[in-house]
Amino acid sequence: MTQKDSVIIYSGGLDSTTLLYEERERVALAVTFDYGSNHAAREIACAKHHCALLGIEHLVIELGFMSRYFQSSLLSGAADIPDGNYDEENMKSTVVPFRNGIMLSIACGLAESRGLKRVLIANHGGDHAIYPDCRPTFVDAMNAAMQAGTYEGVQLEAPYTNISKADIIRRGARLGIDYGATYSCYRGGEHHCGTCGTCAERREAFREAGIPDPTKYNS
Amino acid sequence: MTQKDSVIIYSGGLDSTTLLYEERERVALAVTFDYGSNHAAREIACAKHHCALLGIEHLVIELGFMSRYFQSSLLSGAADIPDGNYDEENMKSTVVPFRNGIMLSIACGLAESRGLKRVLIANHGGDHAIYPDCRPTFVDAMNAAMQAGTYEGVQLEAPYTNISKADIIRRGARLGIDYGATYSCYRGGEHHCGTCGTCAERREAFREAGIPDPTKYNS
Repeated sequence: MTQKDSVIIYSGGLDSTTLLYEERERVALAVTFDYGSNHAAREIACAKHHCALLGIEHLVIELGFMSRYFQSSLLSGAADIPDGNYDEENMKSTVVPFRNGIMLSIACGLAESRGLKRVLIANHGGDHAIYPDCRPTFVDAMNAAMQAGTYEGVQLEAPYTNISKADIIRRGARLGIDYGATYSCYRGGEHHCGTCGTCAERREAFREAGIPDPTKYNS
Repeated sequence: MTQKDSVIIYSGGLDSTTLLYEERERVALAVTFDYGSNHAAREIACAKHHCALLGIEHLVIELGFMSRYFQSSLLSGAADIPDGNYDEENMKSTVVPFRNGIMLSIACGLAESRGLKRVLIANHGGDHAIYPDCRPTFVDAMNAAMQAGTYEGVQLEAPYTNISKADIIRRGARLGIDYGATYSCYRGGEHHCGTCGTCAERREAFREAGIPDPTKYNS
């Protein structure tokens, strides 16, 4: 039997839902961080849904200090989210500074506290241009910090670091994941807006993967 | 004029108070993390006192998830804190897993959010045996992760990593710091208990430094 030795950082979005299903045999605990983003409630509902389906323990950890003290359009309201492509200039206002570092550190402490050995995160290749804390150099250094800073040498695994969102969708489709029950729109409405950077990226990734997109978009 | 370019992780204890005074010209923001430890309220009061004296902005950030989900006698009540020396076996129950990694990540995000370039932390040589997230290998890897994971390459500085608590006290005494207005007892009583591991370490450090100890101990 595979050992349940992992904590996964799980937003309820498309990427981390795929990783959850791929690693379901090894995931002892899924953690969703609620940092007050516009789309937190809908993401959390999706995360709960998939964890319940798979019988995986799920925690929601609130990080209220982020919306109080950090600058980002992702934290300040749907109207501040820009329309358009998921490119550097356009999406930079949505960056939450060092978000992956913060989530990984907390997940690492949780892993050490429970005797678990791995922390999983679903950053992918398409994130590199915009988010410095999604790049391979960050992942490698953070892995070294987690191993050095824990008794048990907790390891970071980020298996999508060098693949695209379309690749992730292809892997998930083979597992039969219902992507209609994942949420990623930065505006946080009932349906995906269809025009913000993440919606544009989502549509494009399904198209590139050649997989029918089950997402309901407003426009 | 020296540029105010730094965030300091500031507990209100002896070590970080010394670093605050040493770096006062460069500290734009001091952050105290309240993770529900037995001694949080008294440490926070000391931190506020010194920041007000020096005219430095001070934030208290609550990390409620730690006392809820992490295992440590430091978080579970004064009666669980062991008496005796500050040695590995005795103090291991007080470890809060990956605490420095978590505090550094949040401080790094705050620094990036405010355009500040450095994060300061006062871990010292005496912590190495007990706390893996105080050792030079951790500090170096975390520094690399912070630089890689931010646009501006936020740097970690931990200038006490290779000196002793007695050395820190000698440096602070030269600056005229009132160590009577610092708090570190893990039991969190009105006065320092005098018998827990941190109190034993504190007494020994003043003795070794050859500096009169202004601390009021219960026994």
